Amino acid sequence: MAHVNPHFRQLPGSYLFSEIARRTAAYQEANPQAALIRMGIGDVTQPLAPAVVEAMHAAVDDLAAAESFHGYGPEQGYGFLREAIAQHDFAARNIAIGADEIFISDGAKSDCGNIGDIFSLDCKVAVCDPVYPVYVDSNAMAGRAGDWDPAAECWTNIYYMPTTAENGFVPALPDQPVDLVYLCSPNNPTGTVLGREALERWVRWANKHDAVILFDAAYERFVVEEGVPRSIYEIDGAETCAIEFRSFSKTAGFTGARCGYTVVPKALVRDGQSLHGLWNRRQCTKFNGASYVIQRGAAAVYTAEGEAQVEATLDIYRANAATIRAGLEAAGFAVYGGVNSPYIWCKTPEGMGSWEFFDLLLNRLSIVTTPGAGFGPAGEGYIRLTAFNSPEATAEAMERIKTHFA
Amino acid sequence: MAHVNPHFRQLPGSYLFSEIARRTAAYQEANPQAALIRMGIGDVTQPLAPAVVEAMHAAVDDLAAAESFHGYGPEQGYGFLREAIAQHDFAARNIAIGADEIFISDGAKSDCGNIGDIFSLDCKVAVCDPVYPVYVDSNAMAGRAGDWDPAAECWTNIYYMPTTAENGFVPALPDQPVDLVYLCSPNNPTGTVLGREALERWVRWANKHDAVILFDAAYERFVVEEGVPRSIYEIDGAETCAIEFRSFSKTAGFTGARCGYTVVPKALVRDGQSLHGLWNRRQCTKFNGASYVIQRGAAAVYTAEGEAQVEATLDIYRANAATIRAGLEAAGFAVYGGVNSPYIWCKTPEGMGSWEFFDLLLNRLSIVTTPGAGFGPAGEGYIRLTAFNSPEATAEAMERIKTHFA
Repeated sequence: MAHVNPHFRQLPGSYLFSEIARRTAAYQEANPQAALIRMGIGDVTQPLAPAVVEAMHAAVDDLAAAESFHGYGPEQGYGFLREAIAQHDFAARNIAIGADEIFISDGAKSDCGNIGDIFSLDCKVAVCDPVYPVYVDSNAMAGRAGDWDPAAECWTNIYYMPTTAENGFVPALPDQPVDLVYLCSPNNPTGTVLGREALERWVRWANKHDAVILFDAAYERFVVEEGVPRSIYEIDGAETCAIEFRSFSKTAGFTGARCGYTVVPKALVRDGQSLHGLWNRRQCTKFNGASYVIQRGAAAVYTAEGEAQVEATLDIYRANAATIRAGLEAAGFAVYGGVNSPYIWCKTPEGMGSWEFFDLLLNRLSIVTTPGAGFGPAGEGYIRLTAFNSPEATAEAMERIKTHFA
Repeated sequence: MAHVNPHFRQLPGSYLFSEIARRTAAYQEANPQAALIRMGIGDVTQPLAPAVVEAMHAAVDDLAAAESFHGYGPEQGYGFLREAIAQHDFAARNIAIGADEIFISDGAKSDCGNIGDIFSLDCKVAVCDPVYPVYVDSNAMAGRAGDWDPAAECWTNIYYMPTTAENGFVPALPDQPVDLVYLCSPNNPTGTVLGREALERWVRWANKHDAVILFDAAYERFVVEEGVPRSIYEIDGAETCAIEFRSFSKTAGFTGARCGYTVVPKALVRDGQSLHGLWNRRQCTKFNGASYVIQRGAAAVYTAEGEAQVEATLDIYRANAATIRAGLEAAGFAVYGGVNSPYIWCKTPEGMGSWEFFDLLLNRLSIVTTPGAGFGPAGEGYIRLTAFNSPEATAEAMERIKTHFA
């Protein structure tokens, strides 16, 4: 009798975006004339950079001829991409990360979800609240989360760290033993960043306790402010306590193309074993490398041409984020994030729940957002808006909000 | 203190192909003039079909313009590909598999490696011996394999089923309780197939014992003989006991492009839970869909043009396999596989170990093969040859073998 993984049974449905879709569809059906503006889902809308497109076409042509054909590539990714990353994302910023410490994948979600394979099932996991659900759900599936408490909307064995306006969106160090800590900066969903001092505190703590920080930097290319770390490896000592996840999804429009990477420093050792070696073994056994075509496209992001084109696209999203911030503030809301991030985290009006505010914006202003409560209990009282719509639609949405609330 | 997964510690190094590479490099260095012919690794060499290339170019162009841009796709894969598969790989062969029972991925290796996520850790696993190492290693990492016995080169808690010439390469039904059974047909490494009767026996057994068959059909498109099942779902009752893995790698040259799929029938239920639902939840949490560009390319395999082009390429490999079979037989060897498969499994000369025969072929004839012992204890006494080299090199290799041994 093949038994199933018992830990799936307690997983609550991943109901957030389907519930948003359901309410949006109902509204649209009732109001077919309404000009809906979608600011809910965090997916890009601008096309790939021309340099990336050109590189992908060339790579497809490589596969079209026997002389230039590429079969199985290295499970860790091609040298041309690992070296471009090491050079541009790290060496150029004086961070010592070797090309062979970089593992290319089909995306940061896969890596964030799969990284648990290399850790013991008895590791105690800490996450920020609100949080990107993958960190929690992947650990719940593995059995690290304990039981689901539907009343508290929490897992009994996950250590939740509230990150709210009250603590400046900087989680406090744990007051109990914790082994694996997920940190995300620029943060999804709050759009806020962890400054150097906060990261230094976390790195000191992790090294002292032999914990491991799983640092999600998928949005690092949105960082514009001087002094805000774009990588945890800007912090001394991070190489002995942190794994970093990166993505080409939001930064270069690869949400459909699929490419990301994970840095596992060789200096990172637990139980006398190299985590680099463990992740390499995991990837060699359960992954066969990212697509050659897509890796060629990703490498073009690091050419002078590609970099300029990608920045120009990011500037569109950044300008949208500024429009949203300014619009919400002008309408009298307390607003966070949106400076080094495509996400804006907005406090709901006094006494209004996040689903209630979601419904108000949908039903009165035809604007789709994401209720903060969907990201965890401490997300209650906020909504998330994303900067990925067109500049025109973004501006129009803010006009509606200012007119209604100001 | 973050502890690592203790089950990685006992994993023996994945040393087979690196050891082959080491010995080959040493030979080449000592014999720089030798005209080496590689028949060891199972990677394709022919380019992608023109229809596939055209579809990939068109898909890249889709991503180059905002109007046709594709961001996040469905985690389960695009409808256009799932429907093409359901139609051509199943409905056209009178197999009732719905498009929504098909999960597109970046390759069969990922799915074979990740499928264990949905099963209990106390499941007892059975594999054929010799075997594709991913089935064993992924379960060893999860903790289902027990301890590694270096003398026997076996895991103490894996149930090994010898599949050798003695039993016609058809594993016997287990004589003890077993929960998960990996079957691969056409088989890697032996190149042999499981006939209808053998599969019917396995399906009856699995349904009777509530076991689950994990059926790897990555090489199904090489089947040419009438009556040989290309899918386990050709067998009545398989939909309540089997998951099937498929790949575009060997069949359409996607080893570098990356695409595969997994079928989880909705009728497959264990512990009262739908495995389809569990796999869907796993994929939605830890995977973000295969690349849009590559899925478009894969869909072109099912056009009339694409299908003809893919078959023409397969015919090159099939002719190579026939050349190898005929050459080895003419040289006096006992040969298996190579009819419905790109792999030929050749008995070593009386009393000669598989590494010894490997060395002989390398050092005397400059031919690289794979020693059967690398796939498990019951692979001792065999070598594997692959049909993926050029027709010219394949013929030349057989001339050398015939001249030397006949």
